[in-house]
Amino acid sequence: MKKTDDQVLVIFGGSGDLTKRKLIPAVFNLFKGGFLPKCYAVVGVGRTEYSDEEYRKSVVFENEHLNEKDKVSESDLKRFSDLIYYQSLDTKDVDSYANLKEKLNQLDQSKATCHNYIFYLSTPPSLYEVIAEGLAANNLNNQEDGWTRLIVEKPFGYDLESAKHLNEHLLKFFAEDQLYRIDHYLGKETVQNMFVTRFANSIFEPLWNRNYIHRVEITAAESVGVEKRGGYYDSSGALRDMVQNHLFQLVALVAMEPPVKADAESIRNEKLKVFQSLRPYTKEDIANHVIRGQYMSSTIKGEKVPGYREEEGVGEESKTETYAALKFYIDNWRWAGVPFYIRTGKRMPTRVTEVVIHFKPNHHHLFSSNSNLANPQNTLVLRIQPNEGILLKFAMKIPGAGYNTEQVNMDFHYDDLSNVYVPDAYERLILDCMQGDATLYARGDSTEAAWEFIDPILRAWENEEIPVYGYPAGTWGPENADTLIEGEQMTWRYPCSNLTDDGNYCEL
Amino acid sequence: MKKTDDQVLVIFGGSGDLTKRKLIPAVFNLFKGGFLPKCYAVVGVGRTEYSDEEYRKSVVFENEHLNEKDKVSESDLKRFSDLIYYQSLDTKDVDSYANLKEKLNQLDQSKATCHNYIFYLSTPPSLYEVIAEGLAANNLNNQEDGWTRLIVEKPFGYDLESAKHLNEHLLKFFAEDQLYRIDHYLGKETVQNMFVTRFANSIFEPLWNRNYIHRVEITAAESVGVEKRGGYYDSSGALRDMVQNHLFQLVALVAMEPPVKADAESIRNEKLKVFQSLRPYTKEDIANHVIRGQYMSSTIKGEKVPGYREEEGVGEESKTETYAALKFYIDNWRWAGVPFYIRTGKRMPTRVTEVVIHFKPNHHHLFSSNSNLANPQNTLVLRIQPNEGILLKFAMKIPGAGYNTEQVNMDFHYDDLSNVYVPDAYERLILDCMQGDATLYARGDSTEAAWEFIDPILRAWENEEIPVYGYPAGTWGPENADTLIEGEQMTWRYPCSNLTDDGNYCEL
Repeated sequence: MKKTDDQVLVIFGGSGDLTKRKLIPAVFNLFKGGFLPKCYAVVGVGRTEYSDEEYRKSVVFENEHLNEKDKVSESDLKRFSDLIYYQSLDTKDVDSYANLKEKLNQLDQSKATCHNYIFYLSTPPSLYEVIAEGLAANNLNNQEDGWTRLIVEKPFGYDLESAKHLNEHLLKFFAEDQLYRIDHYLGKETVQNMFVTRFANSIFEPLWNRNYIHRVEITAAESVGVEKRGGYYDSSGALRDMVQNHLFQLVALVAMEPPVKADAESIRNEKLKVFQSLRPYTKEDIANHVIRGQYMSSTIKGEKVPGYREEEGVGEESKTETYAALKFYIDNWRWAGVPFYIRTGKRMPTRVTEVVIHFKPNHHHLFSSNSNLANPQNTLVLRIQPNEGILLKFAMKIPGAGYNTEQVNMDFHYDDLSNVYVPDAYERLILDCMQGDATLYARGDSTEAAWEFIDPILRAWENEEIPVYGYPAGTWGPENADTLIEGEQMTWRYPCSNLTDDGNYCEL
Repeated sequence: MKKTDDQVLVIFGGSGDLTKRKLIPAVFNLFKGGFLPKCYAVVGVGRTEYSDEEYRKSVVFENEHLNEKDKVSESDLKRFSDLIYYQSLDTKDVDSYANLKEKLNQLDQSKATCHNYIFYLSTPPSLYEVIAEGLAANNLNNQEDGWTRLIVEKPFGYDLESAKHLNEHLLKFFAEDQLYRIDHYLGKETVQNMFVTRFANSIFEPLWNRNYIHRVEITAAESVGVEKRGGYYDSSGALRDMVQNHLFQLVALVAMEPPVKADAESIRNEKLKVFQSLRPYTKEDIANHVIRGQYMSSTIKGEKVPGYREEEGVGEESKTETYAALKFYIDNWRWAGVPFYIRTGKRMPTRVTEVVIHFKPNHHHLFSSNSNLANPQNTLVLRIQPNEGILLKFAMKIPGAGYNTEQVNMDFHYDDLSNVYVPDAYERLILDCMQGDATLYARGDSTEAAWEFIDPILRAWENEEIPVYGYPAGTWGPENADTLIEGEQMTWRYPCSNLTDDGNYCEL
């Protein structure tokens, strides 16, 4: 168990949605689990004026997102709320940070929190640089009497240029090892487990390369549309919102070499190498290997749903993609020639995130297969969500005369781990930052390397005649994406053709 | 679907226990499943005098082993019984075979069974040679007008010399391709599936060798004692009764190279090569790598059970082993240096047959393990019986901070294959013989090669001072067997420490 220093968590955007929905509940769970240090405080920061008591009421006592609040005794809940403070601040007014500093000094004295501060920027990205500068102007970036860390929420830039600009600017005031770029995907247990499963077993790694793997497929599908985020989403799109960060982090975990050690530096070095090995897209590649789509109005289970362009906040002629599918290569010793396929979309038939390793078909056929496929493949499915687990598809003998085979499933469900508490991603990530472990945070060089690969697609989509395919809401996206998959009779995995009543897969 | 010629099944030992318990029920199931050819008959042969009607009553209408007889209409049951005939015969009287020949000729005419005969020897082994000779003397081995096949039940000899003698003698009257040495273990679906699983998947075979496998373990445990077979068993023992045939057949399926084709000749060629590659035991090996044991009286679940020497038909100073454990090597390219461990015993804590592939521990440890073992191994369990299935043990991340791992299970149960009829081993094997497929029958050269390896153990046990260890009934055999397993903290798999109420494992 790592040591957790006494400290203060300062949340910019303290009255915002993420704070109520995720951050305070995460700290509450750490409190319940006994993970908070002896001297600890949370300071919500925002433009609105609140007293500490008003703020506590809003984010603790009246916060519907605080899980199982009722399972905590009233005195404990009061004790938790006593850790919560508020400071109003105008982020664009450098002088106003002095008030925050004053508040922190008071807490350091009254609570002995030792000048250790985490600044969590849960604000629009346009404020990141302003706040970093404001903190620095008041010497709150300084680590002489204690440490200071800055947590930045995605997006880390809007394209390569803005990402570089952001990194450069933040690095003026904070060192790289003070910067924690949070991608909550990395805090998911099943994402981390992908890394552990690879390197804690002797049976997977020998197969984990171009000799045995035919292709890698990663899907992150959402069943919802843009909901109330149309205005934000229309200026972002699937590529920025999902691919450049979440999906590429999954790619890195699947493709990385074994790290020297299981620590932040070693693991993030290996992930960077994956991004550096991505084969850059040519203009032809972008035209042929990247598909973008937009959902169109449709009727799902008898209910009419609007198309993307009819959503609130979306332009009538918007070309923003709600679906993206990419085929690309990682040009290194391990993966030479193995295609990677990733896709993400809104208004898909179900919500699912999974990594699918398709092993090469048998090179020699001793038996006849009962499958419709000429050549069924061994498949390993690493399910990130929902129904977290692992599924291995392999061929077995069909009982009876002869040697006919059939694909069957062997599976493990995370749920089977009884009595194990699976922490929420934010809870895990905040605790890591409290302990100075940046393993699950994105490093600046990696985010830039990922943007470097993505940037030419953004440019081409802006400037070239590249179609935006429509797809009816509730389907698996444009049919053109099927043509990306190389190989006879090979397709994306469409696992939810048989949805169970609760909307989950029949498999896993 | 292979063609099944019109034919007659002749069962020597037609009024015996195996005939009623296994053979007639197997034919009945083939009848129900529509697998019998248009013209077909069964002729029971024995010393006793029966009319056809009396015999039908005994093996059909009053046979309690005929499964789900009541699910067949009365007219169908009558139709089945009409296929059954009886011929009394004194096996030692050569002339008496003429009556059988006459009966068969009649059937060939009345039923158009085309001179195709299977002779099933369900008799004491001492009669095999006599019957083969008697059949030959009456030209019933001849294949001019149709084919003839001889099914021989194990044991195929009592040691190397007797096995050679038996083979030589049978080959005087029948060609090798007319001989079907039946080992019902090979007819089990899960045994055949072991072969299919290896060669129908691209992910197992790359790992299936000395580079990745640490050791192979095969267990065939029975919970019962010798029951009423004490007299027979005392002249046989675990090595002859289980190891030389059943367990070695499993070894061959685990260890064999991929065959040229999935046919009898190719598969049996590869199995032979395994037996030919067994590293012969020296006297020291036998003293150190082979453990024999005998169960002693004990109390199991409150019930007193007798020791082996107290069983009916067993000598008071019997040295016959009811338990045997062996460590040995297969000296070939694939398995050099990989120890194989096999054990079998009566009066074990549970009934189970399984093959366990222990993969090598990780050579490099990135993560700390929560296991008691310093170095948990990936393990693949191929369960032959009961709860037939496949289990893969692998390490996963324990949820929460850090990278602690835990062994978890991914499994497949044969039961999950719904609506699939799993034929009984005898049913499968008789049908194979009817169709002339000898794949699942033992070939003479293989049985001799297996005896060649086993024979020195038998000799040493007879002549040298090698202890017979006692073990209390209901335990996993002599503790000395634990010392066979090489490797720190490594043991046999003792899976049934947690028995469920119905006596099965908690795992699989």
